[in-house]
Amino acid sequence: MTESFKASDLIITPATTFKDKPDPNGLVFGTVFTDNMLTIEWSLASGWEKPCIKPLGNLSLHPASSSLHYAIELFEGMKAYRGVDGKIRLFRPTLNMDRMARSAIRAALPRFDQNELLECIRKLVEVEKEWVPYSTAASLYIRPTLIGTEPSLGVKKPTKALLYVIMSPVGPYFASGSFNPISLWADPKYVRAWKGGTGDCKLGGNYGSSIYAQQEAMELGCQQVLWLYGEDHQITEVGTMNLFLYWINEDGENELATPPLDGIILPGVTRQSILDLARNWGEFKVSERYITMSDLTAALEENRVKEMFGAGTACIVCPISKILYKGKHLHIPTMENGPQITSRFLNKLSDIQYGREDSDWAVLVS
Amino acid sequence: MTESFKASDLIITPATTFKDKPDPNGLVFGTVFTDNMLTIEWSLASGWEKPCIKPLGNLSLHPASSSLHYAIELFEGMKAYRGVDGKIRLFRPTLNMDRMARSAIRAALPRFDQNELLECIRKLVEVEKEWVPYSTAASLYIRPTLIGTEPSLGVKKPTKALLYVIMSPVGPYFASGSFNPISLWADPKYVRAWKGGTGDCKLGGNYGSSIYAQQEAMELGCQQVLWLYGEDHQITEVGTMNLFLYWINEDGENELATPPLDGIILPGVTRQSILDLARNWGEFKVSERYITMSDLTAALEENRVKEMFGAGTACIVCPISKILYKGKHLHIPTMENGPQITSRFLNKLSDIQYGREDSDWAVLVS
Repeated sequence: MTESFKASDLIITPATTFKDKPDPNGLVFGTVFTDNMLTIEWSLASGWEKPCIKPLGNLSLHPASSSLHYAIELFEGMKAYRGVDGKIRLFRPTLNMDRMARSAIRAALPRFDQNELLECIRKLVEVEKEWVPYSTAASLYIRPTLIGTEPSLGVKKPTKALLYVIMSPVGPYFASGSFNPISLWADPKYVRAWKGGTGDCKLGGNYGSSIYAQQEAMELGCQQVLWLYGEDHQITEVGTMNLFLYWINEDGENELATPPLDGIILPGVTRQSILDLARNWGEFKVSERYITMSDLTAALEENRVKEMFGAGTACIVCPISKILYKGKHLHIPTMENGPQITSRFLNKLSDIQYGREDSDWAVLVS
Repeated sequence: MTESFKASDLIITPATTFKDKPDPNGLVFGTVFTDNMLTIEWSLASGWEKPCIKPLGNLSLHPASSSLHYAIELFEGMKAYRGVDGKIRLFRPTLNMDRMARSAIRAALPRFDQNELLECIRKLVEVEKEWVPYSTAASLYIRPTLIGTEPSLGVKKPTKALLYVIMSPVGPYFASGSFNPISLWADPKYVRAWKGGTGDCKLGGNYGSSIYAQQEAMELGCQQVLWLYGEDHQITEVGTMNLFLYWINEDGENELATPPLDGIILPGVTRQSILDLARNWGEFKVSERYITMSDLTAALEENRVKEMFGAGTACIVCPISKILYKGKHLHIPTMENGPQITSRFLNKLSDIQYGREDSDWAVLVS
């Protein structure tokens, strides 16, 4: 049995007809896909097959496939950026590969060599390089996906799986634009993830269950859900992003805070990068700590809150201006405060991503 | 926009080649499927299309389909039984239809008329009637499935969906046979469902996340996971079944107990039927109540536990003989006690299902 596929075995039979590339200014997130995709099949009997880059097309799946019944599935989200020097870069892609490998274990899906997958993805981006937007306000979103294709109904570890990667040129995640603040709905009645569950892995089940709450948020005039946890209403994540609070903490210190990776928080690549940057700057306290809604409301009353923002690959950083909690609209003064720190992170990250600044975090595709 | 599909619009183009029907004695759960399937497409733009009964075949799905990325998917499990009188019956199918409708709301999938779907399923079983095993130890398992087919990557309510039904002749769910007792692993480190989540709906995400724990149970020599909840280690469910305890309770009363439907318990059709039967018998106390592991261990020490069993459509009832908890094997004396109550439920339910006894719960297919 093959332990992993190898990028050197790639069979590349690219598309011979091409879609028109969309205007980078009018992109709706994840709706247009490039001409080609990467697929790699796995079975318990024969291990991994050779990876293929081939024209994007529908998947042919047995109707009993375990991804369709039992959500045996995981994904990743990463981006390729066309730099100001014309070179194409990935951003800390090994962090995505490592997280994907952890998700695979949790989902009982087959393991693979992360470096080999990264090299296959690099090749796919190379094949599709004209799809990487000629814009520093857009990028090529890369969606690695691993699904169980077991064609039987017992709830068990699948004996067949499919790893595939599709790509989509994207602009800002939110229709409201790249740096417009969003409003959040915080209600403890829906809980995103819990100890002993899968909230720290990027499994499909974490997302589908969130849409019902998201709809309720929108009905109440908010754009995203602020997920709370526990009796003390701990702040955990925002919609599909990690959350950061820049404030003067209870001890009077300037602090950048985000909830700790205690099993219910997705270990975001952008989250890690913001922590790394801030720790490197050394200008204020940087904490992975619990923040409750009462910590936040107390700080708001005492004018100790400076900025609050979501962080994720899709949006990079996204300022937060309002939280609807217990029927009251809490105003978060992120925008009034610059937003200084939020913009600084966005600028720093985008300088690295678009090659305006040299960094180990940027990995050249070509 | 069509509010629901109609069974009277069914387009039936059945298979013209037929698979061999397997021996009802050697069936492995959910591995062999009948020749035909039911499919019904939905889109936000046009509503429900006409339902089709057509040859079983692979689904052609866009690789961005929201079921494959965000587990926007749900299913049901029900069975058709060939009675001793040759007639084919469904068992309380409206309960499945109602649960499916509730799951659809929670998963942000489209609504439909439950009666119309039931009539489509009845037709499908009629078309496939020779697939209903000629055996009172087997049945035809029916798997209605509803998946999001939205071909884009934003985490949102899908604008396309597919409802389909596949069917599989099945024997006992467990390879060990129909009435062999199973052993359970109870460890609080994995939690199946939580308040504010989706444990009371039949969504895919509840199942995929369970396999990792199931593997660990098997490595420890147990067959299924006994899911615990909360600091006090409440007993909730077993693998994919509801759980029942027949015991002498703390007040010295004979009691049949199962955890209440408080949001983390799947409202099983077999669970409901056992409660209904027991309440109708009126011979012992019947309770939907919390049971903690310490309640159970105390009762075991005092010889107050009589029987424990799982209940679900796949297995009907399944006796439990052992629980591995905190490194200790707790012996459950289910089999030594007959198992009297467990067998009585199995016999009663199977009498209704196989037409040995008249009941409103059995719905004739043909």
